Amino acid sequence: MTIEEKLDEIRDQVVEEVPNQVEITNVDFEGPEVVIYTRDPREFAQNGDMVRELAKKLQKRVTVRPDSNVLSDPEKADKKIKEIVPDDAGITGIYFDSEFGEATVEAHKPGLVIGKYGSTLREITKHIGWSIEVIRTPPIESKIIESLREYNRSHSEERKKILKRIGKEIHRDPSSKEEWVRTTFLGGSREVGRSSYLLSTPNSKILIDCGVKPGSNSDGTPYLYVPEVTPIDDLDAVVLTHSHLDHSGLIPLLYKYGYDGPVYCTAPTRDLMALLQLDYIDIAARDDRKVPYNSKMVREVVKHAITLEYGEVTDISPDIKLTLHNAGHILGSSMAHFHVGEGLYNVTFTGDFNFGKSRLFDSASRDFPRVETLITESTYGGSKDYQPSRKEAENKLKKAVQNTINRGGKALIPAFAVGRSQEVMLVLEEQIRHNKIDEVPVYLDGMIWDATAIHTAYPEYLNEKIKSRIFHKEKNPFLADIFKKVDSQQMREKVMEGDPCVILSTSGMLSGGPILEYLRYLGPEKENSLTFVGYQAEGTLGRRIEKGWDEVSLPGSNEKTNSVKINLNVNSIEGFSGHSDRKDLVKFIRKMKSNPERILTIHGDEQKCIDLASTLYKKFHVDTRAPKNLETIRFL
Amino acid sequence: MTIEEKLDEIRDQVVEEVPNQVEITNVDFEGPEVVIYTRDPREFAQNGDMVRELAKKLQKRVTVRPDSNVLSDPEKADKKIKEIVPDDAGITGIYFDSEFGEATVEAHKPGLVIGKYGSTLREITKHIGWSIEVIRTPPIESKIIESLREYNRSHSEERKKILKRIGKEIHRDPSSKEEWVRTTFLGGSREVGRSSYLLSTPNSKILIDCGVKPGSNSDGTPYLYVPEVTPIDDLDAVVLTHSHLDHSGLIPLLYKYGYDGPVYCTAPTRDLMALLQLDYIDIAARDDRKVPYNSKMVREVVKHAITLEYGEVTDISPDIKLTLHNAGHILGSSMAHFHVGEGLYNVTFTGDFNFGKSRLFDSASRDFPRVETLITESTYGGSKDYQPSRKEAENKLKKAVQNTINRGGKALIPAFAVGRSQEVMLVLEEQIRHNKIDEVPVYLDGMIWDATAIHTAYPEYLNEKIKSRIFHKEKNPFLADIFKKVDSQQMREKVMEGDPCVILSTSGMLSGGPILEYLRYLGPEKENSLTFVGYQAEGTLGRRIEKGWDEVSLPGSNEKTNSVKINLNVNSIEGFSGHSDRKDLVKFIRKMKSNPERILTIHGDEQKCIDLASTLYKKFHVDTRAPKNLETIRFL
Repeated sequence: MTIEEKLDEIRDQVVEEVPNQVEITNVDFEGPEVVIYTRDPREFAQNGDMVRELAKKLQKRVTVRPDSNVLSDPEKADKKIKEIVPDDAGITGIYFDSEFGEATVEAHKPGLVIGKYGSTLREITKHIGWSIEVIRTPPIESKIIESLREYNRSHSEERKKILKRIGKEIHRDPSSKEEWVRTTFLGGSREVGRSSYLLSTPNSKILIDCGVKPGSNSDGTPYLYVPEVTPIDDLDAVVLTHSHLDHSGLIPLLYKYGYDGPVYCTAPTRDLMALLQLDYIDIAARDDRKVPYNSKMVREVVKHAITLEYGEVTDISPDIKLTLHNAGHILGSSMAHFHVGEGLYNVTFTGDFNFGKSRLFDSASRDFPRVETLITESTYGGSKDYQPSRKEAENKLKKAVQNTINRGGKALIPAFAVGRSQEVMLVLEEQIRHNKIDEVPVYLDGMIWDATAIHTAYPEYLNEKIKSRIFHKEKNPFLADIFKKVDSQQMREKVMEGDPCVILSTSGMLSGGPILEYLRYLGPEKENSLTFVGYQAEGTLGRRIEKGWDEVSLPGSNEKTNSVKINLNVNSIEGFSGHSDRKDLVKFIRKMKSNPERILTIHGDEQKCIDLASTLYKKFHVDTRAPKNLETIRFL
Repeated sequence: MTIEEKLDEIRDQVVEEVPNQVEITNVDFEGPEVVIYTRDPREFAQNGDMVRELAKKLQKRVTVRPDSNVLSDPEKADKKIKEIVPDDAGITGIYFDSEFGEATVEAHKPGLVIGKYGSTLREITKHIGWSIEVIRTPPIESKIIESLREYNRSHSEERKKILKRIGKEIHRDPSSKEEWVRTTFLGGSREVGRSSYLLSTPNSKILIDCGVKPGSNSDGTPYLYVPEVTPIDDLDAVVLTHSHLDHSGLIPLLYKYGYDGPVYCTAPTRDLMALLQLDYIDIAARDDRKVPYNSKMVREVVKHAITLEYGEVTDISPDIKLTLHNAGHILGSSMAHFHVGEGLYNVTFTGDFNFGKSRLFDSASRDFPRVETLITESTYGGSKDYQPSRKEAENKLKKAVQNTINRGGKALIPAFAVGRSQEVMLVLEEQIRHNKIDEVPVYLDGMIWDATAIHTAYPEYLNEKIKSRIFHKEKNPFLADIFKKVDSQQMREKVMEGDPCVILSTSGMLSGGPILEYLRYLGPEKENSLTFVGYQAEGTLGRRIEKGWDEVSLPGSNEKTNSVKINLNVNSIEGFSGHSDRKDLVKFIRKMKSNPERILTIHGDEQKCIDLASTLYKKFHVDTRAPKNLETIRFL
């Protein structure tokens, strides 16, 4: 069937389903969605069930848009919206996108724009014709989010074209009637870094993640040039599980090499990814290292991103449906579940996940209706990889900081900007609020502030407890007075010369970033402290200090590398990890709603992957294996 | 380095090595060989060590050819050769190929053309300039060999162009410095049929075998369209282990789809392959089945074939050397040994092999200097797959035939044309010669005669015992008076109506061929017999009769399928197989000169492959696996 025939068929089904008076002017595929254009958007707005019923009947995601003829003048519409919505809502911006017939209302209190059971929203629609999207004004101003949103708005015509093209690709007829499913391991197998996997069927090629191996040189890229992947524009889709560079770092490269399809991920993953990729380019430029792409390619990724919410079942190719599930690792992190064919086969990639407790997130989802093959991370898959409890870790952190304050020193904490920093912020905020630590300022330097802002812009991705606090400005822990953003060299110097405090700064392994400047100044003095809250990889400066070196040279090639005496107090605290430890990895599999018949272990040192595969075989009597990079395993 | 620079370097080395008076006019790559053109071919002819020394120094196969200026007139040369060679040699043809500067002398006794220690040959070279190749006139006339030889002679200009192109490809600089080795399983894994494997490195893609799955329909082809293989013209080489259609049947298809590289195999494999492929087309046409290629494509394969002898180490790509070893399975069958890089890695594909005794061949080679990964067939890899001894099998055959004669009946033996038929012929010839079976005629129908002729044309591929008998016309068992070729419908009818006899006919599983006509006529009569000497696959007529059906319909769609009563005596004899049985598979691995660190089991029913892998793991404590089609396993 041609695309046109398919659309005609869908249009007939839609017309049959909606009341007679509702005029349907067009039906089209845009990305994975069926978009229905109508002269009567009010009818749909007033009857929320209608869209739900249609989606169910069509087995597709359905969006209704007003026909361009019924859109009122944006200036008038803007006025009308402000008239209807109560002032308390705190509208900070209204943006009209005529390409998508959509008005975006950004407000401090989205609930008041929507109204009880959507009453306010319906009222607006009745008057202005436009569909309304209501989004939260980030409680902390975020330049990256603003600029990404602005970028996509100003490219909406191009985005629409892209989505239509992708829509046609997804809904093409399958070319083969064979049935097989296989996965090629391109990076991140028996190692941590450069995660990348190709899921393929006779009709589809899906790339899952495309990361760098931080700290490595020429061999730090996945095996993207092997024939399974090339030509790269044959890929149907890229799915990104989360934003960390070891999963996302080389996605821009795909666009440089001719890929022009979608990247599926959650909205926060898209924003954090862009933040981290741009930072990656900056840092590399500063260190005179080569980055294989520039910021233009990052914008291409953003332009092609199709954001999904957890649980949304989405067609991404003629025979594959994708659903993202909460992974509990960092903001927006997902497990990617692939359903092949009509009930033919199910594969789940866990991505990085945390089945244990954390302050920010619910623990990872285990409610997959069916999983035949599970591909799980193994970061802490070794037989001795048990992490101390969170309580223990938090106690240790409290002591390390308080002791420093008692000595009149400054507590330096290097941390990854995304994830670990926010966890530590929450711990410090609580302990200071409860007077377990003296009230001292907590300075945030590097990208931490931006990353935190993105967290507050997507509270629906946090757990209930933290979400409800963010919704109340006075309780939002990230807005606590103790947190101070360091935004100039002048301020940085003041902090270093000032009173006892905590300094949270990037990078997490001391391989670059402002942390080095703090170390140069604070390192020689005994009263200060340096507290590691994350894994220090072999070969990094962090690792050397952890090992007890008392004099180190600082990296960074632009300035003379000079030597620093390490006299400050050094601590390492385990237990803040965003990964499941050995116990939780096993527990997760035991508790899965559907028992997989095959488990593959990846994303861990070679011995840990092998060890975990062997343990899982013994415990669950299913086929397990620790694949190698460049291998292809057939599932069906 | 460019090809020209490489050739210049080689030329310098050659000039340095040969005596001053020897003039080198050109040096070129032709296929895997370095060809040296000289005005003084006599110098090389008189000093055989010179070429050997050069080959050693260059680490290449070296051929010396006379410069075209020194070639004498073919008519005069023809005369001169006949003058020098004694009449007893029995020259049957002399062919001059000016493209290669080579004269081929075909004679009944090649030894007399060569002379003691090559003296006669040197004498000829001295007078005529041409290089001489001496080949044996097949003791049994073979149309297929004649026509193949004639075909290649008449296309020698094109063949030379092809070889030069291939030579450049093989000797190009490697494009990648990475080091990995992997194999993709495209067919024949956990099944018998459609054998095909892709060996790849960063610099090479080698296809090993490309067979059909006889008796199957649409899914009877290997997975050639997967991205690892396509585009098919990216392949560096095809290596064919032996001629049976489940290994060779789809090689012509590769040329249809754009491949124009070499096929490496032994000379008898090339000839038998062409015979079987042409027959495959014929039979399919007769049955109104589709064959994916025509005879033109078979000729393309022959044109691109580069024949190797056992033990010849040959460059087939920038980083892979191939050596074929005797596999003992059928005439010309080989184990393919691949040496990757400079001592980097070694992979051996056993192909189909027999480590047990047979009348025709030496048992399979086990003298590989180094093998890290062994990929072995598993036809009889199941835990109960022990075959009776040859002696037992031969006794059973004797009884079955003699009993039939005693009853005044005719003994019908269906057999594969290549391999099994010749084995059975040798048994019958010996037993009749030793009066263990009454002297009755043994009629050969179908392709058996042609296949036998090819055996006698390549005695050097048979074991010492049978070779020495073939060299003496009066002792050549295949020329025994008892054997009669059935070459007309008239004769066939005479045989069926005549006196007690043995009828050996194709096809082996009664799926087509003249055997069906015999069965129709002889089936209803009790005094006749039908003796299976090979495996009858599920779904074939042979299998049904073996199971005891007393009435069957004959296949073949051109004539009405009609029903035949099966009253004749049915026997099944195991033990004539060309495959190693379970015991010999294990023994082979135990006796290998180099112990592999990984063994993969293929070419067997699913359970047998798994069973053998598990047994070998337990016995040898090495990594074993039964891969699936469409999987890729990384070796290094």
